Amino acid sequence: MIYSNVFLLLKKKYLYEWKQYTQHTFVKKLISNRLLEEKFFNYLKQDYLFLIQFSKAWSLAVIKSDNLKEMKICANTVNGLINFEMDLHIKLCKEYGISNKELFNTEEKNKNIAYSRYVLESGYSGDFLDLITPLIPCVIGYAEIGNNIKNYKPSNLMYKTWIQTYSGEEYQKISKSVGRLFDNAVLNRLGKNFYRTRKWKSIQKKFKTAIILEIDFWEMALE
Amino acid sequence: MIYSNVFLLLKKKYLYEWKQYTQHTFVKKLISNRLLEEKFFNYLKQDYLFLIQFSKAWSLAVIKSDNLKEMKICANTVNGLINFEMDLHIKLCKEYGISNKELFNTEEKNKNIAYSRYVLESGYSGDFLDLITPLIPCVIGYAEIGNNIKNYKPSNLMYKTWIQTYSGEEYQKISKSVGRLFDNAVLNRLGKNFYRTRKWKSIQKKFKTAIILEIDFWEMALE
Amino acid sequence: MIYSNVFLLLKKKYLYEWKQYTQHTFVKKLISNRLLEEKFFNYLKQDYLFLIQFSKAWSLAVIKSDNLKEMKICANTVNGLINFEMDLHIKLCKEYGISNKELFNTEEKNKNIAYSRYVLESGYSGDFLDLITPLIPCVIGYAEIGNNIKNYKPSNLMYKTWIQTYSGEEYQKISKSVGRLFDNAVLNRLGKNFYRTRKWKSIQKKFKTAIILEIDFWEMALE
Amino acid sequence: MIYSNVFLLLKKKYLYEWKQYTQHTFVKKLISNRLLEEKFFNYLKQDYLFLIQFSKAWSLAVIKSDNLKEMKICANTVNGLINFEMDLHIKLCKEYGISNKELFNTEEKNKNIAYSRYVLESGYSGDFLDLITPLIPCVIGYAEIGNNIKNYKPSNLMYKTWIQTYSGEEYQKISKSVGRLFDNAVLNRLGKNFYRTRKWKSIQKKFKTAIILEIDFWEMALE
Repeated sequence: MIYSNVFLLLKKKYLYEWKQYTQHTFVKKLISNRLLEEKFFNYLKQDYLFLIQFSKAWSLAVIKSDNLKEMKICANTVNGLINFEMDLHIKLCKEYGISNKELFNTEEKNKNIAYSRYVLESGYSGDFLDLITPLIPCVIGYAEIGNNIKNYKPSNLMYKTWIQTYSGEEYQKISKSVGRLFDNAVLNRLGKNFYRTRKWKSIQKKFKTAIILEIDFWEMALE
Repeated sequence: MIYSNVFLLLKKKYLYEWKQYTQHTFVKKLISNRLLEEKFFNYLKQDYLFLIQFSKAWSLAVIKSDNLKEMKICANTVNGLINFEMDLHIKLCKEYGISNKELFNTEEKNKNIAYSRYVLESGYSGDFLDLITPLIPCVIGYAEIGNNIKNYKPSNLMYKTWIQTYSGEEYQKISKSVGRLFDNAVLNRLGKNFYRTRKWKSIQKKFKTAIILEIDFWEMALE
Repeated sequence: MIYSNVFLLLKKKYLYEWKQYTQHTFVKKLISNRLLEEKFFNYLKQDYLFLIQFSKAWSLAVIKSDNLKEMKICANTVNGLINFEMDLHIKLCKEYGISNKELFNTEEKNKNIAYSRYVLESGYSGDFLDLITPLIPCVIGYAEIGNNIKNYKPSNLMYKTWIQTYSGEEYQKISKSVGRLFDNAVLNRLGKNFYRTRKWKSIQKKFKTAIILEIDFWEMALE
Repeated sequence: MIYSNVFLLLKKKYLYEWKQYTQHTFVKKLISNRLLEEKFFNYLKQDYLFLIQFSKAWSLAVIKSDNLKEMKICANTVNGLINFEMDLHIKLCKEYGISNKELFNTEEKNKNIAYSRYVLESGYSGDFLDLITPLIPCVIGYAEIGNNIKNYKPSNLMYKTWIQTYSGEEYQKISKSVGRLFDNAVLNRLGKNFYRTRKWKSIQKKFKTAIILEIDFWEMALE
């Protein structure tokens, strides 16, 4: 499954960290049905708060876009997140026994703040690539995790649903589209020899930082 | 036709400027079929560039939102603009003989830059109200103009279509929804006695500046 | 020692968290000379990276200012940070055996990222108060800590210097000036009854979040 | 007088517009003592408002900087503007009979708004180069104008002072320092073959737009 060529390069460079993230204990416990529900609820509630900031990051990407095509892809992502994913998330939480009140009053934990604000600030202070790069480990990481674990069938229906969501056709499609957006954004801005530019160094650094912040996001859920 | 109560207050305060804007020679010539097509084409081409910045301003409003409800309204506006209005605009221009190439290569004129960048900068440097306030004269102004001139039937089909667009049900509905967003945003942030707050002074000033920049937008088309 | 009246209100509301922060084990160990030098070096290196983001936050405050007086205070803070504090920090580190190379290549830890990016993003997405509020626990917190521990004289010269810096006249003066800036900014924007406004709620929340992120900053040093 | 090599390239490409700007009627009238004082006062009052936004633009440049060296140069510029130039400007205006009250209540004209907000928005939405590029025609343009007209001695003391300010050693020095900052920023980010990158195209476009907005700034004073 190839989501993006530029992503592949970055993943290879930080393979150690990438595995720590995509093969995290949280995921291992989830697929083998050993994850305490309480930890999964932690995750779901923090993820709700993350989705809000994530939608804002994609809205910022509309502004940072260079052309109408980029604007469209980013705006569609915002639309999907705010009008579908958010509602689905709220609905699922309710089904699982997390009331709206509990969900909406969840306090954002530091490790959640760290990742989302890192992305947003990188976007505000930088350009389109500074914003998109640290989003990639999230978008494509979840797609890869979903694909890795698609054959696991934990008895806990919540975990099964989670696996189906991220391994499912729709999410895989979105991730490939974001991967293409990333590839094109890099090529259009930095050219074919992008890996020789100075910007590439800062892209690499931001990609790595984002992975490490994502690892902490799993840690947070298990705490 | 009441679009927004807060807007009404602002309009009354700057009624002189408001009339200069909404009853501008450009509009008068258009409804009486005396507008040179060349001027209308000027307008259409600059308006295309404006729509891009306008979509970015609404994307910024998603980020500056305080709650999910505001985020949804702003995201829906972005979606409508980028996925429908932009395409419609391009299509109409083509029908009228403005090729895509000509449209996409149009140079943004200073008076166009002035308004859109004023709005965006006010949003970046300020809060939700600093961003929405200077957008109101545009959104509701066009609705009011449309409503004022809905019974005019210039023989030029381009002008007829323009009148129908802004007097039409869909645009009127959008404007009322933006008007409600504005009213609620002011009440939620500044309270019932908003007109006594210091923020109200800067809102008034920004509203007035936006009207004056809108007047220059018409002027630009006639130059 | 009263740095700011608005700050006092906020401190009282979150006194439990405030004590966790200002009386943190890191500080207790430092004053009693029990802090491992290795932990202090951790702190110094991360603090260098923090100072860069901190200077950027104060630069953003210049842009978010409402008047020339606010602009001046913020610009002077930037100037002090970039032209004096940064150089002093680099010089001290060198004296303590942390080479420039080691200092400049330090990797920013997640708990460092969390606080600085929270502040910057809050500033970018919000107004002057959204930016200044989460800076207050840092600026005034260190002044209060300095004042609390001014009579301790650990034998380790590095720790003695640290105490002298934050309890010293110059830093105390800066903190009071920032405290006044905060008081005036709140009064000018929200009025005398600021504690009844909706904005006050979000100011409280941001103040609390900033304290909790500051606690994690000490934790990070001890890890 | 060479202020910057990158600037020279840009100037050559837009020499026609550059001459319209640097040899504008406003300047010609000023050096030959034919400028109506009323027009000069227009200019001074608008320039005061511009200086505020200009200081904010340089503050934004601190945030958008890639390294400590860039941060220092930009912070020093902010410091010079806010703590010296602004005060000097206010003092000069007073000497010339423009009271503080009149100065502080000046309404920002559209052509003033257009340039400053274009720069700020370009900076917010883009990176360091997107911000610095449209500032260059202002900073170096005035230095070049000053140098061009340094031997003119209009009898009106206000005009003489104006010529001395921009042809004077201090302003020339600042401009060269900003020119070097620009050269280094381009080389560090885009490499030696910067003129072959895609970014160079957008830099050129922004430089040209800024010149055209500067021309309108003179026009505004003469209106």
